[in-house]
Amino acid sequence: MSEEMEAISCALPHVGSTVIRLGHGSGGKMTANLIENVFLPRLGNVILNQLEDASIISLPDNAHSQIAVTTDSYVVSPIFFPGGDIGSLAIHGTINDLAMRGAMPLAITAGFILEEGLLISELTQIITSMQEACTRGQVNLVAADTKVVGRGAADRLFINTTGIGIVRFSVPPSVKRAMPGDVIIVNGDIGRHGMAVMATREGLELETTILSDSAPLHRIVESILPLEHAVHCLRDITRGGLAGVLTEIATASNMGVLIHESEIPIDPQVNAICELLGLDPLYVACEGRFVTVLESARADEFLQLMNERWFGEYSFRVIGKVVEEHRNRVVLRSRVGGNRIVDKLSGEQLPRIC
Amino acid sequence: MSEEMEAISCALPHVGSTVIRLGHGSGGKMTANLIENVFLPRLGNVILNQLEDASIISLPDNAHSQIAVTTDSYVVSPIFFPGGDIGSLAIHGTINDLAMRGAMPLAITAGFILEEGLLISELTQIITSMQEACTRGQVNLVAADTKVVGRGAADRLFINTTGIGIVRFSVPPSVKRAMPGDVIIVNGDIGRHGMAVMATREGLELETTILSDSAPLHRIVESILPLEHAVHCLRDITRGGLAGVLTEIATASNMGVLIHESEIPIDPQVNAICELLGLDPLYVACEGRFVTVLESARADEFLQLMNERWFGEYSFRVIGKVVEEHRNRVVLRSRVGGNRIVDKLSGEQLPRIC
Repeated sequence: MSEEMEAISCALPHVGSTVIRLGHGSGGKMTANLIENVFLPRLGNVILNQLEDASIISLPDNAHSQIAVTTDSYVVSPIFFPGGDIGSLAIHGTINDLAMRGAMPLAITAGFILEEGLLISELTQIITSMQEACTRGQVNLVAADTKVVGRGAADRLFINTTGIGIVRFSVPPSVKRAMPGDVIIVNGDIGRHGMAVMATREGLELETTILSDSAPLHRIVESILPLEHAVHCLRDITRGGLAGVLTEIATASNMGVLIHESEIPIDPQVNAICELLGLDPLYVACEGRFVTVLESARADEFLQLMNERWFGEYSFRVIGKVVEEHRNRVVLRSRVGGNRIVDKLSGEQLPRIC
Repeated sequence: MSEEMEAISCALPHVGSTVIRLGHGSGGKMTANLIENVFLPRLGNVILNQLEDASIISLPDNAHSQIAVTTDSYVVSPIFFPGGDIGSLAIHGTINDLAMRGAMPLAITAGFILEEGLLISELTQIITSMQEACTRGQVNLVAADTKVVGRGAADRLFINTTGIGIVRFSVPPSVKRAMPGDVIIVNGDIGRHGMAVMATREGLELETTILSDSAPLHRIVESILPLEHAVHCLRDITRGGLAGVLTEIATASNMGVLIHESEIPIDPQVNAICELLGLDPLYVACEGRFVTVLESARADEFLQLMNERWFGEYSFRVIGKVVEEHRNRVVLRSRVGGNRIVDKLSGEQLPRIC
C-alpha cells in the first residue's frame, strides 16, 4: 500500500506507520509503540523509563524528601459533558495520577491553548470549574500560561496540567509490584465517564442520565495509608479502560492477571450504550475509578475499612487476582465459565475522551 | 457593532471582546486583561497572583527548601526555524523561566499534542532536539504525556513543558524589586529569535542568515550568584519583547524605566527585516536574552565579571536605569534626544513566535 493510500485509511490503526494516527493517542499498542520506538530511545532516563502515573524524584540535600511529578494534556471533545467539563477533568486527572503513587497534591500548573473564537464565557465557566476542583482537592494552581492559536489550529481549548505532590507512602505503589496471590480491587462501576462523553457526542443525551465519574481520588488514597504496606499497586482507570490498566500491570510486573466477568460492576445504562455503539466496556475510560493490587491476607480488612469510610460514595469489590500463570497477560473468566485473553487494543476504540 | 461583525474583524485587537482573539495570546494588554478579568478572579491565590516567570513554593516540613515551578505551552509556527525548533525552544524556555527566579533546573515534564498526519520523522527530530537541550542543560525529563487529535484540530505539534527548579538565590529576583537608581542590563542584541521565525514564515530565508538566539540561561544566572545581593530582578525577553519586559518591571515595581535607544544592541539584519515587515524591534521576542536590574554601585563589577566569563558568547551592556519619575512607564530617549513612551502593545505584533 502506498504512503498516500495509508494516509487515507487513517481510521484503521496501523502500527508501522510513518505518520501520526489517532490510534497513537489511544493508550493502546500504537501508543506503546510510539513511546518505545520514538520517545524513550531519545528522552528516556531512569525516571521516565518507569512509565508510572507519576514520577518520583528526590530533592538534593533532602534525602528523605520525595516529590511526585505528573503531566497530562486534556483534549476532550465536547469540552462540557454530563457530570463535568475539561477543567474539572484536568484537575481531577492530575490529582489522581499523584495519588496513584501514594502522593498528596502540593501544587498544580496549567497551560491553556485557546482557539481564536472561543467564547470567553465558556473559558470562564471552565476556569470556575477548575477553581472549584482545586478548592475541593485543597490544592493551589501555582503557575499558568495561555497561548492563543488561529481558527482551525486547535479544537477550542486544550489544557495541560502538571502536578507536584508530596509522597506519603513509605514505598510508592508501582505497576511493577504486583505479586502472585494479590487481589485486584476496584472502587466502583466502570465506564461512566467514557459513556457520558460519547452519549453527548452522539446526541444520545435524551435516552440516558449517565454522569461522568470524574472525581479526585487522593482522599481515598489517604484513607488507605493505615494499610499501605499491603498495597502493591494503585492505578487509575483512564485511557484504555480497565483492560488497559490490567495489561500494564501484568506486563510491568511480569505476572498474569485473572478477572471474573461476573464480579466487574457495570451500570446497566453504560452496558446498554456500549452495546448500542458496539463498544466493550472493559476498554472504556473512567476518571474516578482505580485499581488496587493488595496482599490477599489484608483484603477483608481493606474492604471493610474502605466500604465503611466511603459508604454511599464508592463501593469496593474484588474482581480478580494476580497469578503466576499466563504471565504478561490478562485473562477474563466469563459468566459461562470460558476464558478469553483481554489484550490491549491496537489503536483507538474511543477517540479523545480524556 | 454586532457580535458577528466583531467576530469577523478578528485581526484587530479588541479589548472588550466576548470571544478569544489572537491578541489575547500576545503578551500585551489584551493578555493582561484576560489574566486580570478571567483567570485571577477565579484561579488566583497568593502564589499565582505574583505573575512571575516561575512561582516559588516551600515544601512542607522543609522550611529552608524552596522550589521554583513554571509552565509554558509552545505553539510556534513553523516548528523548525534557523537556529532551533519547537523542541529545543521548549526546553530552553522552561530552563530560562526557572533561572529568572534564581533557580537551577531539577526536572522538566513535557506534554505533547500531536495532529494526526504529523510525520513521525519530524516528531523524532524534535524529540532528539529536546534531548540534546536537556543534556546541555543537565536536566532530566521526568514525566511525559502524548495526545493525538484529528486533522485540523491542532497545528501539527504543540508542546507544554513544566519545570521544577531548586532556588539558589537567597532572595529570589522579582519584577517587584526594581529600585530607583538601579541599572538595566541586557546580555546581547535583541530580536533575533522573532526575526529568524518571521523570515522563515515569510519566505525571506534567502536574504538573511539570522539564527534564533534560543539558548539556556541558567549557567549565566549561576555565574551571577557571587553578586546575587545586588541583583533585584531577572527577566527573560520573550513574548512582548524588551518593551513588554520593561513595562512589566515598571508596573510591578511601581517605578519608571528610562532606556537609551543608542545603547540597545540590534543586529543590522534584524533591523532591516523589521523595517521590511513594519515591525518595531523593541517588541520582538528573543529566547536567549534577559534583563538584569542591578544596584548601580555594582554595575562595573557585574559587567567585568560577565563579559570576561561569557566572552564570545554574550555581550552585557547597560541600556538604561530605574527612575522615580514617570512611574509605571517606560520612556525611550531617542538618538536625537527626544523622549517617547514605550507602551505595552494592545494585541499582537507577531503571532505565535514562542
